[in-house]
Order: sequence, then structure tokens, then C-alpha cells
Amino acid sequence: MPLDDSGALHAYGVLGIGEVRPGDDVGRVLAEALAARGTSELHDGDVVVVTQKIVSKAEGRLIPVDHADPAAKRAVVEAESVRVLRRRGDLLISETTHGFVCANAGVDLSNVEDGWAALLPVDPDRSARRIRAELRRRLSVLVGVVISDTFGRPWRQGVTDIAIGVAGVAAVVDLRGTLDAGGRELVATQVCVADELAAAAELVMGKDRGVPAAVIRGVPTGWLRDGSVREEVVRGHAADLFR
Amino acid sequence: MPLDDSGALHAYGVLGIGEVRPGDDVGRVLAEALAARGTSELHDGDVVVVTQKIVSKAEGRLIPVDHADPAAKRAVVEAESVRVLRRRGDLLISETTHGFVCANAGVDLSNVEDGWAALLPVDPDRSARRIRAELRRRLSVLVGVVISDTFGRPWRQGVTDIAIGVAGVAAVVDLRGTLDAGGRELVATQVCVADELAAAAELVMGKDRGVPAAVIRGVPTGWLRDGSVREEVVRGHAADLFR
Repeated sequence: MPLDDSGALHAYGVLGIGEVRPGDDVGRVLAEALAARGTSELHDGDVVVVTQKIVSKAEGRLIPVDHADPAAKRAVVEAESVRVLRRRGDLLISETTHGFVCANAGVDLSNVEDGWAALLPVDPDRSARRIRAELRRRLSVLVGVVISDTFGRPWRQGVTDIAIGVAGVAAVVDLRGTLDAGGRELVATQVCVADELAAAAELVMGKDRGVPAAVIRGVPTGWLRDGSVREEVVRGHAADLFR
Repeated sequence: MPLDDSGALHAYGVLGIGEVRPGDDVGRVLAEALAARGTSELHDGDVVVVTQKIVSKAEGRLIPVDHADPAAKRAVVEAESVRVLRRRGDLLISETTHGFVCANAGVDLSNVEDGWAALLPVDPDRSARRIRAELRRRLSVLVGVVISDTFGRPWRQGVTDIAIGVAGVAAVVDLRGTLDAGGRELVATQVCVADELAAAAELVMGKDRGVPAAVIRGVPTGWLRDGSVREEVVRGHAADLFR
């Protein structure tokens, strides 16, 4: 441990979350998994990062699809897309109804039962608000919530986790107008802290360990405000150079 | 603190790093800042994330440019670019000699002295290896090193920190072939952990606080191998759908 812990961040996976099924309440599932390990597990000001997968399952965002039938999979992906940007073989890069640009419209065939696909939540910011309210009701803690998903990026190999919804925590923190170390005003320094929180959480969740949630402690209190991925992160067509 | 700390991650900024000047040794600067706070500050297996800015300054990657002259700034950016992808007003999205695609070829005018611009290190993987070797020599610790920079992304507002060089830690961890929680083989799950480590570090560095390095403790030992951003992360033109 550092001698001076100020500004330090601590992240750990939430263990003990079992299979989530349609109709489950994610807030309840999280609260029970955390309570099983002692109430000190969650503090006011913590940020809870939850993977899209269990949110989609709980919200019943599952549709039947034959995993062995490429045409069936393609039809599901196209139904979730409002615009196709690129197509190569089975891979489709498209824009979803939310305005996200990602592979296969976020439709997920892994970690779901055979014969089913998981779609993105209809409104991930709203999903995050519900989880936050349920954690507050059950555990009497006021936390931030980030719903994360795994996206690829152009120009760089490897996927990273990003935020598709937030509640009680900023998606983007605007540092414009603050001074750099040399006393000059910083320009264009709007940091997408929600994506960075999702990335940090992925490091402790581990795709192969099946941990679908993490807690991050030590987030600056100034970031704990009403946030929205849809309003702060999704870039409009006019401002986008690659659409 | 969680009751069960296994798999947890801890990140903190390295305080007390002063102004870095051409000819400085970043490994020495880091070692001195860490030693001033006690030798327990750095352990075998920690990952040290260092911002590009102090690496570029130490390596003398500074060139004179009149900050008030748009044409002069543009000339510097174009000299650092091998290919221009998009141009809008003063903003240029281009490919650097390293194969990175970013705004203004990574040329940085903030946090440098007036009249100067900082260019990206010539070979950030090599820069990371040098820092790692110097930390080993001075502190007798074997750590991973990530050199980070702040990039924008298409389709999403807000910048995040990503990795431009690594040493002693994987850039991409390949989870293909491992089984998901349902026992099915995961496909296409190559995670760019170097970018996620850079993002996690940014959360504790804070652009406005001028902390240019961070330590991350708790990284899985399996990730601590020879890595390279150039070889693992930079996507070749043939595999790229957006170039």
C-alpha cells in the first residue's frame, strides 16, 4: 500500500453472482452477492460497474437464434442496426438504435444459452438508474453505476470495455478551462471517465472468470453527479468524421 | 477494503515528480520520486504507467513552434504524419510513423513551454524498455511499464488514455480458446489490457493535477511478459475497415 493513499483507486470483482435470468432484479442480485460478504463491501461514493450481459438477461433482452445458422445471426444483427458502416464476411460494423457504433450491433452469442442471443438493453442509462435506486433501497448506499460492454475499435487490435450506460456518475468530465501544470488553460480535455471506469473494472472481472460486476472505490466526489452515456458520449453525426 | 482481496487492483499516482527536461532519465526520475516516499512504494509485478509527455520531454522530442501561428502548427503535424485520414478546420486525424491514428499526429502544445511542441517518442516500446531496465537497476524491482497518451475516438465523445508503448507486460491478452462460464469456447476475445491499464491510471493521475505517472498493483502475473504495442495493438491496413 502506498504511504499516501490520497487519490488512490481500488477495484475488485463482485464474486458469488450466479446465473441471472429474465425477470431478475440486477440491483437485488448485486445487493445479495455483496451482503453475503459483509455490508462493508459497498460504501457511499463507490462506483459499481455491471456488465451488459447480466443486465440484458435480467431485462429479458434475449431472442432465439440458431447459432449454427449465419443467415439467422445476420438477420438478428441487422434488426438491431439503424445503419451499416462496414461489412466483411460475418462481421458487420453498424450503428445501433442507441447511437453506438460496434461490431454486430452488440448482439452477443457467448455466455448465453445455446439457441439464444443477448441484445443490448433498450435504454442502458435507465437500466443503470434502476440498479442504483435498488442498491440505495436495499443497502442504504449512494453509489455510481456504470453498465459496461466490450467493444472493438478501429485502428487498434484488441477489445476493451466501455460504458453504455451510467447513473450517479459523470460519463464525461470537462477539464476545459482548468489550468495545466504550466498555468496555461487546457483545451479539448473532456475525459470520458465512464469508459475509463469500465476499462479499469474489466481488469478485475476477467472474461474467463465469469465475474459480471466490479466495485471501484476512490472515485473523485466531483464526478458523482447525474450522468448519461446517451447525452454525453454518443457523438452526433454532424460532429463525427467517421460516419 | 474488501474482505477478500484476491484479484483486486490498486492504483495510485506517483507524486513529487518535478519538471522533466531533455536529457533527464525517466527511470531515474521515477525511482527518486518513489524512493522519497519509501521503498515499499514499488513491488515486483507492479505496472508503472508513465505519460507520453514526460517521456517525450526527457528524450528531447521537442521542436520550436509558434503557438499563435496555425500554419506553423499544421506544418509540424503534417511532418509527423504518414497519411491524413480526415481534416476539419485546425483538426487533422492522421496516421503517425508508428501506425497510430490520432488527432494532430500526437503533437502536443499543452504542458510544454510556450514556443515549443512535444512530439511522440520515436519508439515508445523501446522507451518503456529503458524505463523498466532503469527501475530494475535502481530499485531491484521487476515491473511492467506502460507509456500512455490521450487519444480521442470516432463515434464517442471524450478522450481516454491508451497505451503507446509497453515493456514487461502484455499489450493484448488472448483469451480465445478459454471457456466462458457456460463451457463454450470464447471467440474473438483478445483484450487490449495495456489500453485498460492506461485508462485505469488516468483515473488517478488527473489531467489538472499534473501527476505524470501511476502505479497499478495486482495485475495478473500471467500478463507480465514481453509485450509490444507496435506488434500487438497497431492494426495493419489489410485488417482495418476504417482506413
